[in-house]
Amino acid sequence: MSTNQIPYKIYLEEDEMPRAWYNIRADMVNKPAPLLNPLTGKPMTLDEMSEIFCRELAAQELDDTTAYIPIPQEILDFYKMYRPAPLVRAYCLEKKLGTPAKIYYKFEGNNTSGSHKLNSAIAQAYYAKQQGLTGVTTETGAGQWGTALSMACAYLDLDCKVYMVKVSYEQKPFRREVMRTYGASVTPSPSMETEVGRKINAEFPGTNGSLGCAISEAVEAASKNPNYRYVLGSVMNQVLLHQSIIGLETKAALDKYNIKADIIIGCAGGGSNLGGLISPFVGEKLRGEADYRIIAVEPASCPSLTRGKYVYDYCDTGKVCPLQKMYTLGSGFMPASSHAGGLRYHGMSSVVSQLYHDGLMEAVSVEQTSVFAAAQEFARVEGILPAPESSHAIKVAIDEALKCKETGEEKTIVFGLTGTGYFDMYAYQRFNDGQMGDYIPTDEEIAASLAKTPKV
Amino acid sequence: MSTNQIPYKIYLEEDEMPRAWYNIRADMVNKPAPLLNPLTGKPMTLDEMSEIFCRELAAQELDDTTAYIPIPQEILDFYKMYRPAPLVRAYCLEKKLGTPAKIYYKFEGNNTSGSHKLNSAIAQAYYAKQQGLTGVTTETGAGQWGTALSMACAYLDLDCKVYMVKVSYEQKPFRREVMRTYGASVTPSPSMETEVGRKINAEFPGTNGSLGCAISEAVEAASKNPNYRYVLGSVMNQVLLHQSIIGLETKAALDKYNIKADIIIGCAGGGSNLGGLISPFVGEKLRGEADYRIIAVEPASCPSLTRGKYVYDYCDTGKVCPLQKMYTLGSGFMPASSHAGGLRYHGMSSVVSQLYHDGLMEAVSVEQTSVFAAAQEFARVEGILPAPESSHAIKVAIDEALKCKETGEEKTIVFGLTGTGYFDMYAYQRFNDGQMGDYIPTDEEIAASLAKTPKV
Repeated sequence: MSTNQIPYKIYLEEDEMPRAWYNIRADMVNKPAPLLNPLTGKPMTLDEMSEIFCRELAAQELDDTTAYIPIPQEILDFYKMYRPAPLVRAYCLEKKLGTPAKIYYKFEGNNTSGSHKLNSAIAQAYYAKQQGLTGVTTETGAGQWGTALSMACAYLDLDCKVYMVKVSYEQKPFRREVMRTYGASVTPSPSMETEVGRKINAEFPGTNGSLGCAISEAVEAASKNPNYRYVLGSVMNQVLLHQSIIGLETKAALDKYNIKADIIIGCAGGGSNLGGLISPFVGEKLRGEADYRIIAVEPASCPSLTRGKYVYDYCDTGKVCPLQKMYTLGSGFMPASSHAGGLRYHGMSSVVSQLYHDGLMEAVSVEQTSVFAAAQEFARVEGILPAPESSHAIKVAIDEALKCKETGEEKTIVFGLTGTGYFDMYAYQRFNDGQMGDYIPTDEEIAASLAKTPKV
Repeated sequence: MSTNQIPYKIYLEEDEMPRAWYNIRADMVNKPAPLLNPLTGKPMTLDEMSEIFCRELAAQELDDTTAYIPIPQEILDFYKMYRPAPLVRAYCLEKKLGTPAKIYYKFEGNNTSGSHKLNSAIAQAYYAKQQGLTGVTTETGAGQWGTALSMACAYLDLDCKVYMVKVSYEQKPFRREVMRTYGASVTPSPSMETEVGRKINAEFPGTNGSLGCAISEAVEAASKNPNYRYVLGSVMNQVLLHQSIIGLETKAALDKYNIKADIIIGCAGGGSNLGGLISPFVGEKLRGEADYRIIAVEPASCPSLTRGKYVYDYCDTGKVCPLQKMYTLGSGFMPASSHAGGLRYHGMSSVVSQLYHDGLMEAVSVEQTSVFAAAQEFARVEGILPAPESSHAIKVAIDEALKCKETGEEKTIVFGLTGTGYFDMYAYQRFNDGQMGDYIPTDEEIAASLAKTPKV
């Protein structure tokens, strides 16, 4: 092992950290289709967007021409508390696999939110504060996004109101307590605080809640207070923009040691991590400067890219958010209760969808038992206990490394390790006890759900 | 803020990392008193020690003359997976407190065990493997040590058998699952697998177990298998030796930026973190090269340094381990059920005890509600959600920084942040709900317990 040349962990110096986000839309020939107003069917204007989102974030959402957007100093200072994230050379995993491939992972889990979500949470909280708002609302399912947002709001002294899907609120009390420790108010959804919550509670007494319902409650709560706005953790262009910090740091770390990646792998739910990780690399592809294989990994239980359709669809069950053109399984698609809560979303970011549609990247789906087996193998040699979501990328990175073992190719594989699994031990327990299963939706289930996408 | 000069986080380069542990006993004028055989009352010999511990670790336990012991390459390689740990400048906390003090913390929580325990776990597992053993046994209470050991054993392909105090086994299932994910066998203690376990179960049906009992079971289980040895996570000299990596890295990071510490603060349970952190600094004091204020922080519910006696005592309830001269509350002392499980030990490392006895350091005790308040304040501005144990050091660091605010002194305060609180959210929930209390043992309770120390 040439450990003397490439360290186990590449940390950028603070002065090597990116000072601007990269907006891949500026380099895309085929821009993502515009967001549509669900009431009029027409493209959303900045003013319409600003009723839901902070104005600066709405502007970022619509901006598909500015390639680099400077990161405000206060956000840079916050980033310094937990960034740069290390780019780790997986020497031990390589040795265990006996592969000639060189494996690197960008580890985003070294912060209390446990994931990359903090990169966008602090940006969204910052712009809310700048606009003079006093608080933000959001929804959270598994809880990573809610945790990240509560941390950002605590730092900036901003109210944070989180609607947490009721079943998670009850089954993941520790996630809830992290948010409360950071001062957030956490409400199980559906609640009796909002019209939509009361309506759903009346219609489905004793319901466990859903992400779609929690979104609707958060949007409604924000709309009732002129000093609040709604923020969210994935899918939107603005989120991918902020998450480009992942890819920019990764590329800077590789460049520092003259490493050229061959394959870049990320897990894909709504696309926040994947889009952020791949942006600068796909940018090079778009500009004809370099070539990479890019692989999105999604759960077989919720395969929007590999089995969905590229059409306009609702982003939420309540149908209050703008329509997006994306690979989707239909907004009514109910993924089986898998243990990768962060990947259980029916659609995919417009940017990622367009890149995939244009053949700039590949997608594969994997089953959860194979994902947990990969997670365990990784944990035992690399130390880090990964989040179920991140482990989708691990699974495919291992698969690609084993292909290299067969062919003898010394490919360089880079994958995104988005977070840690410390709040997912119930899932690991199911796996340790041999009680975890797999679920793949039938073609009929997907077709039935897709039949209900809006006619645009 | 002079952020351009001192970075938020000081990371050593891999070639700046320490390559030898520092054995402070070599520089101590008054050596720690020798371990005594509980049966004969005479100093333990290497051969006697080797029946319980791996031979190399027994040798390290008895070695009070070698100042620097080289770290084997395989351990250095493992360290590179999660070390160097950052030395963080707490700019945000300083700003929040409005203090002229400069606050730094050495953060040991960036690994899956969530604490500094891994530093010694890998060393102990390594020497077991070198000796040709096939497995190790240990006990765990809160679970940090058991987790660390299971990680180290997974890496080296060594059996790991953990006796986990029954109440923790049941109330902290997620800690248990982390260990199982790393391949450890975890048994609730008292079990029916050992003589001592069966005896205690017969005597106290339905008992919740205790650390003292779990130690006895682990020692017995190891003694029954010639290819196993017993290992443990604190108190012993060998553990402090391995943990000196904390202090050595801290000092190297400070030296790199020409920073001179004035006050060094660590939480103290058995002394593993504190002893490791302060070793190189106290070494300078002993050699007359520099002066520092050193402060040990212990819980008011278990105040061995501040209210205990400096005498020989049993290390475990079963009285099978060697006797140690130490500050102790008596091996039968039952600390109130506080939420800092890692600090609930009746005695203190012999090294730390001797240093304290010789006036080389101070000690203070703090109450847990004030500790959690400090933890929450820290989390909200510095991002990291700290372990309850580590938060004892935070509390006193904040107190000292506020004193500097009063006097206007620009002191440099360094404290050890030993770990994260991700598996302690039940404790935070109690705090968030205003249900946490404090408990201070009476003089009578302590005297009654001390009356039962052995006559040596």
